[in-house]
Amino acid sequence: DAPFTLIAGPCQMESRDHAFDMAGALKEICGRLGLGLVYKSSFDKANRTSLSGRRGIGLDDALPVFADLKKALDLPVLTDVHTEEQCATVGEIVDILQIPAFLCRQTDLLVAAAKTGRVVNVKKGQFLAPWDMTNVLAKIVESGNPNVLLTERGASFGYNTLVSDMRSLPIMAETGAPVIFDATHSVQQPGGQGGSTGGERRFVETLSRAAIAVGVAGLFVETHQDPDNAPSDGPNMVPLDRMEAMLERLMAFDAVTKG
Amino acid sequence: DAPFTLIAGPCQMESRDHAFDMAGALKEICGRLGLGLVYKSSFDKANRTSLSGRRGIGLDDALPVFADLKKALDLPVLTDVHTEEQCATVGEIVDILQIPAFLCRQTDLLVAAAKTGRVVNVKKGQFLAPWDMTNVLAKIVESGNPNVLLTERGASFGYNTLVSDMRSLPIMAETGAPVIFDATHSVQQPGGQGGSTGGERRFVETLSRAAIAVGVAGLFVETHQDPDNAPSDGPNMVPLDRMEAMLERLMAFDAVTKG
Amino acid sequence: DAPFTLIAGPCQMESRDHAFDMAGALKEICGRLGLGLVYKSSFDKANRTSLSGRRGIGLDDALPVFADLKKALDLPVLTDVHTEEQCATVGEIVDILQIPAFLCRQTDLLVAAAKTGRVVNVKKGQFLAPWDMTNVLAKIVESGNPNVLLTERGASFGYNTLVSDMRSLPIMAETGAPVIFDATHSVQQPGGQGGSTGGERRFVETLSRAAIAVGVAGLFVETHQDPDNAPSDGPNMVPLDRMEAMLERLMAFDAVTKG
Amino acid sequence: DAPFTLIAGPCQMESRDHAFDMAGALKEICGRLGLGLVYKSSFDKANRTSLSGRRGIGLDDALPVFADLKKALDLPVLTDVHTEEQCATVGEIVDILQIPAFLCRQTDLLVAAAKTGRVVNVKKGQFLAPWDMTNVLAKIVESGNPNVLLTERGASFGYNTLVSDMRSLPIMAETGAPVIFDATHSVQQPGGQGGSTGGERRFVETLSRAAIAVGVAGLFVETHQDPDNAPSDGPNMVPLDRMEAMLERLMAFDAVTKG
Repeated sequence: DAPFTLIAGPCQMESRDHAFDMAGALKEICGRLGLGLVYKSSFDKANRTSLSGRRGIGLDDALPVFADLKKALDLPVLTDVHTEEQCATVGEIVDILQIPAFLCRQTDLLVAAAKTGRVVNVKKGQFLAPWDMTNVLAKIVESGNPNVLLTERGASFGYNTLVSDMRSLPIMAETGAPVIFDATHSVQQPGGQGGSTGGERRFVETLSRAAIAVGVAGLFVETHQDPDNAPSDGPNMVPLDRMEAMLERLMAFDAVTKG
Repeated sequence: DAPFTLIAGPCQMESRDHAFDMAGALKEICGRLGLGLVYKSSFDKANRTSLSGRRGIGLDDALPVFADLKKALDLPVLTDVHTEEQCATVGEIVDILQIPAFLCRQTDLLVAAAKTGRVVNVKKGQFLAPWDMTNVLAKIVESGNPNVLLTERGASFGYNTLVSDMRSLPIMAETGAPVIFDATHSVQQPGGQGGSTGGERRFVETLSRAAIAVGVAGLFVETHQDPDNAPSDGPNMVPLDRMEAMLERLMAFDAVTKG
Repeated sequence: DAPFTLIAGPCQMESRDHAFDMAGALKEICGRLGLGLVYKSSFDKANRTSLSGRRGIGLDDALPVFADLKKALDLPVLTDVHTEEQCATVGEIVDILQIPAFLCRQTDLLVAAAKTGRVVNVKKGQFLAPWDMTNVLAKIVESGNPNVLLTERGASFGYNTLVSDMRSLPIMAETGAPVIFDATHSVQQPGGQGGSTGGERRFVETLSRAAIAVGVAGLFVETHQDPDNAPSDGPNMVPLDRMEAMLERLMAFDAVTKG
Repeated sequence: DAPFTLIAGPCQMESRDHAFDMAGALKEICGRLGLGLVYKSSFDKANRTSLSGRRGIGLDDALPVFADLKKALDLPVLTDVHTEEQCATVGEIVDILQIPAFLCRQTDLLVAAAKTGRVVNVKKGQFLAPWDMTNVLAKIVESGNPNVLLTERGASFGYNTLVSDMRSLPIMAETGAPVIFDATHSVQQPGGQGGSTGGERRFVETLSRAAIAVGVAGLFVETHQDPDNAPSDGPNMVPLDRMEAMLERLMAFDAVTKG
């Protein structure tokens, strides 16, 4: 079995320079570690807690950056899509289209993403059981695209709290789809800070270790050189300068799992 | 205080004839009871559990029916919107645009609905706390539209189960927005039947009584002349021929509440 | 159908004088309203959050007070038991033995309470589904005592929060046992204040209205002349001087329910 | 850091012969693997789902067997206590007194267990947050006994389901107490089979891997030579003949964690 693939990057694409800095740094780290890397960034944060939350640079500005990143750094890129219309455009350049958790039941979006022929990564809704993802997966596969990743990112547990049910990983893997663990959003505290969403960065490694020991195809971690000043998801992002050591520890568990 | 407004109708618009039959029957019932009625129907079920679930007759066919219903029966109508693009079109005819629970954090949809100037009814996501709706409401109000309804439709409670927290009604009412209780979707068992969503119709009245005694501006109940053969949400819909007696009982509680 | 019975009193028995004051005041209120009253008080708080929490005056001091209250005021009394040994002693005087929620699966305690021949009121554990109470009830009935009350007092909902599922009332009523709604403990926030348990008194009436509209045989409400200085459960108790008005409002709903 | 200690044995003590067979087999396995072993067995199942569930051989018959096991096999033993009275008697022989999850807030039981001077293992209630265990721990420590283990065994997650929140392990470890993961009861489905409790044995290793990668001082696993015919907890117990291979895999993760 291959080691886990790392899906990483800052929550938002902030600028061309920032994207190149982050992707370059991550590529170096993964090169040293021998890990596959998919660079992740959002061009639009479409469901911020409040209107005043910064949303990102937008699709038109982001796509050329993704295209140049791919060429310059020779790595696949992932971004999330929010509407049917975006799918075809994004799919021209981006390697993996990600369906946000809140939207994982929106049939038209799933079908439009499927039709691009790109890999589709669906985040399991916080309101779904792991076995419910069988139906979500089927919508994409029946639309002619068998290249689907399923991502665990926490389940609703009372108010303003998520819990990561590690049983969901083998349950979703039974579908045959590669399963990703999103350590960043699993430590969110949705709405937990009034006008924005909180999080507990200190549990990113805790939950990543657990998921990797159980067995995952990929690990999703958002990172930033200065999370506390990032425009979104700061409380959950791992500082870039701590990524390599953390990944090294996680790879040791993965080696045992993959045996 | 006025009695609760009834928002009712079949889950899907099935045909012009069916819509006129249902709306006519409901109007007669509400006329006899002295209840305000908003006729509800979906033109598209955009998040069915599986691809093969019937989705409805579509926007183009549904809008003229809504227009004719309004004129012929002199009643306001409500339908749900799923994309920004639909908002302006739907808003030309439909009186209340409803934001589905899964989509209640999608900023662009909320803003587009707000910009129609129509009343916007937002269903609280199964993954949100009642106080989180303050932020959702603000997105619409700050977009220039103060006419917002907030609807309780259950919170995630473990897997494949919802629970109705009656505290959410006064908490949401503190925002100043009228609060609706959706008795139909609160008794859903999401994903509970494998390829479709289950439900427990027998608790529609139970939860409606509770909500009305606590105090609501409106009650949302889906109904059908033959729920067990309806194209969607059959397990949760109240048979049309039981609506009047149920509403009469509920009005007696409402009279005490509104005192 | 008869109106609901009120089970009320301060959380702890604080002193003979306090008990007579509270019971006397409640008896007057219920007399004016035409409500049946069971006087409730604990002689020992056996599961306080911390060792330093005040536990009550103890069994030996409490039993004579219960005996005198019964005689002087001609009302039935209820208290909770924590061990098998207490059951027989308490059962000599107290009319209703209450099994605390955490202990509702302890077979020996249930059987010992059953064997007293007194009415046994079992609180549903925060960790149980309403249908699980069928097994709890059977333990008592099979021990020869059919006089059982089942009480809803909230279900665990994430951390430090309870939720009241109003469906549990008709589900438990299907057993044939009278169902009580405990409005005081349903608004607890277990462990929510670090070294003690918090609560939200403002929802006592909210949830009581809901439960009574759904239909209950009894309502359990703790009350105190000065809750904020009470030795336990202060945040949940209703001030004595607000009880009568609240009960009057609740009786109006009950009259509709009982038809 | 030392490898995890294994706390293992059949759910119930069934007979002297069965106890010696099981303990002997486990001692051999742990000897080969270099794992510390604590032999676990219950003399009484005090909270079976129904009255007819088999409860075990009782305290009087079990204690001599525990004494002889300790002498003959030179290993520490653990059993659970349900009443204050049992503590002193059990504490004469048994090395670790375990407080059942439902009883983890019962002050008198905690204090009586503390007073034996033996190690006390408290299972976190399904209704408690991990940080709530600080108060539980304090009750024992303030009673003069600092030798406390804290065990995670799942949190209530809707009805008839538990979820294992791996964050609870480091949160409880912050108290300074060694933290145990109970893999057997974490896969219970409480009340899930009507008159008895169900479970999913297949997730015992899944959750154990996760917990061990996060880091635990001990692992609690019930085992039986023929789980499907065991008198209790059969659906959760690991067959004895699969224990060694599973433990070997788990030790590989533990070695990385303890590093």
